[in-house]
Amino acid sequence: MEVSDLIARARDGQPRAVARLISMVENGSPLLREIMVELCADRPHRARIIGLTGSPGVGKSTSTGMLVQAFRKRDKKVGVLAVDPSSPFTGGALLGDRVRMQDHATDPEVFIRSMASRGHLGGLSWATPQALRVLEAAGCEVILIETVGVGQAEVDIASLADTTVVLLAPGMGDGVQAAKAGILEVADVFVVNKADRDGTQATIRELRNMIGLVERAWRPPIVPTVAYRGEGADDVVNALDEHLAYLEESGELARRHHVRARDEIEAIALTTLRSRFAHLHGDSRLDALATRVLDTGLDPYTAADELLAAVG
Amino acid sequence: MEVSDLIARARDGQPRAVARLISMVENGSPLLREIMVELCADRPHRARIIGLTGSPGVGKSTSTGMLVQAFRKRDKKVGVLAVDPSSPFTGGALLGDRVRMQDHATDPEVFIRSMASRGHLGGLSWATPQALRVLEAAGCEVILIETVGVGQAEVDIASLADTTVVLLAPGMGDGVQAAKAGILEVADVFVVNKADRDGTQATIRELRNMIGLVERAWRPPIVPTVAYRGEGADDVVNALDEHLAYLEESGELARRHHVRARDEIEAIALTTLRSRFAHLHGDSRLDALATRVLDTGLDPYTAADELLAAVG
Repeated sequence: MEVSDLIARARDGQPRAVARLISMVENGSPLLREIMVELCADRPHRARIIGLTGSPGVGKSTSTGMLVQAFRKRDKKVGVLAVDPSSPFTGGALLGDRVRMQDHATDPEVFIRSMASRGHLGGLSWATPQALRVLEAAGCEVILIETVGVGQAEVDIASLADTTVVLLAPGMGDGVQAAKAGILEVADVFVVNKADRDGTQATIRELRNMIGLVERAWRPPIVPTVAYRGEGADDVVNALDEHLAYLEESGELARRHHVRARDEIEAIALTTLRSRFAHLHGDSRLDALATRVLDTGLDPYTAADELLAAVG
Repeated sequence: MEVSDLIARARDGQPRAVARLISMVENGSPLLREIMVELCADRPHRARIIGLTGSPGVGKSTSTGMLVQAFRKRDKKVGVLAVDPSSPFTGGALLGDRVRMQDHATDPEVFIRSMASRGHLGGLSWATPQALRVLEAAGCEVILIETVGVGQAEVDIASLADTTVVLLAPGMGDGVQAAKAGILEVADVFVVNKADRDGTQATIRELRNMIGLVERAWRPPIVPTVAYRGEGADDVVNALDEHLAYLEESGELARRHHVRARDEIEAIALTTLRSRFAHLHGDSRLDALATRVLDTGLDPYTAADELLAAVG
């Protein structure tokens, strides 16, 4: 199938075309450039990007399901990118998970897609922006990016999302962990899920104290939920709306979009350079330079300069 | 102190000058290029590079100590690079460790140095070749690179060393692990340390069976040792000498040197590119491109091309 045909079908909202395009993004298809040029030329509307992150066990996919439902009630077309190797959203197709997602699996206005967090091309920061463009072209107005909050992931998600939701659960020692992992810096909204459990108030209190220690223009609200029963869904959406209003009024939204575009350009440029280098393996210029370093006392820095001049 | 003065002192075998130069390598000093040009111009002799790798607990540093002693008995000037965050060789200076290394701490013909495996410039593959050049300039004839065999490290070490020694210990399930981690592909010599323990023969048998499954021109020997008592030291040195003879006769040594020079040039070129990119943060060109992506529908691929043309 032609790229333009595939894109036309995706714009028409056909799930298989959307799935195919995201697979091409994930696999670093040689047609990727053509796809992106065409997607961008048409200047699709910009979706609202919401990141969800949290430790394993806090109920991320249940909460994602709850938010999908809440936005569907508001008649929004929703996309979900589950960037998580341990996520229940597995497989290469658009599909729902076993828990809450099955409610939406047959809803044509919901796209759900899992992505490997560590692709051969550099993970979240590289492939996700392009997957977002595909979902935007398919008409998604809200896109939820769900990722497990381990290591670098929550920082990456914060750089991609307009609003980052950090999920916690009572009695998991998450409060202390949160401060340690620096998620306090990236959270725009805190959700304390499983709020029917003991320790919820203590977790909220601890969180509130920690938030108080950080000087930020936006003070992240703390929203209790019981996601598997859908409790607190409207409160989360309200908190998200308030944050969006803050982003727009303060000019922060434009700033985030700008930083995101800059990061994307840089990531593509670095990938391009890496692939130019990869083509040099077996290239006679690199071999000739190596021989000169070994035999004539040429230093590797000068050799590297010559190499760069050759591939520039 | 002037770079040329520092290099003169290192060539004179002064430990503090050697330590200072390796620190400059590790920290990515702006003088690095000048140092390397001067070190290479003089075309120092080439040291024999021996890599030692293995899982935690197999007795790597004790075995390294045993080998240092064995080469000192043969009147070789020895350098040790311990590229291992969990290694007992810590600190920024040339120093011995608490176990076997203390025998050599005051020996002026032995340089021992720890390096962080994950520096800001890209770890083992980047900084180690340059640290090797410093040790070669200081007159080291044999250089042992010790690193913990986890993930990518054993592959990296194999690309740097003339001979790679993989250490195992009986009863650690290392045999099976070895096959899994692909160390069978990189091992030139297997050492089964702690050979006074139960299970040594079983480990050797298992290893021999696995070696039999891989088709290679050089069949790696298996040498049992009890490193803390110095038992088997001569057998290891003999195995190393046999492998060196094989490398020379087969032309494999020249090939490995060539690949290593090529890798070093590539690593420096990539680092140079990355630093050019880093300088672009806050650069108006990248910002202008980001604005065009956001406002005019310029695709990020074309933007990346323009960026690359600008920094080329």
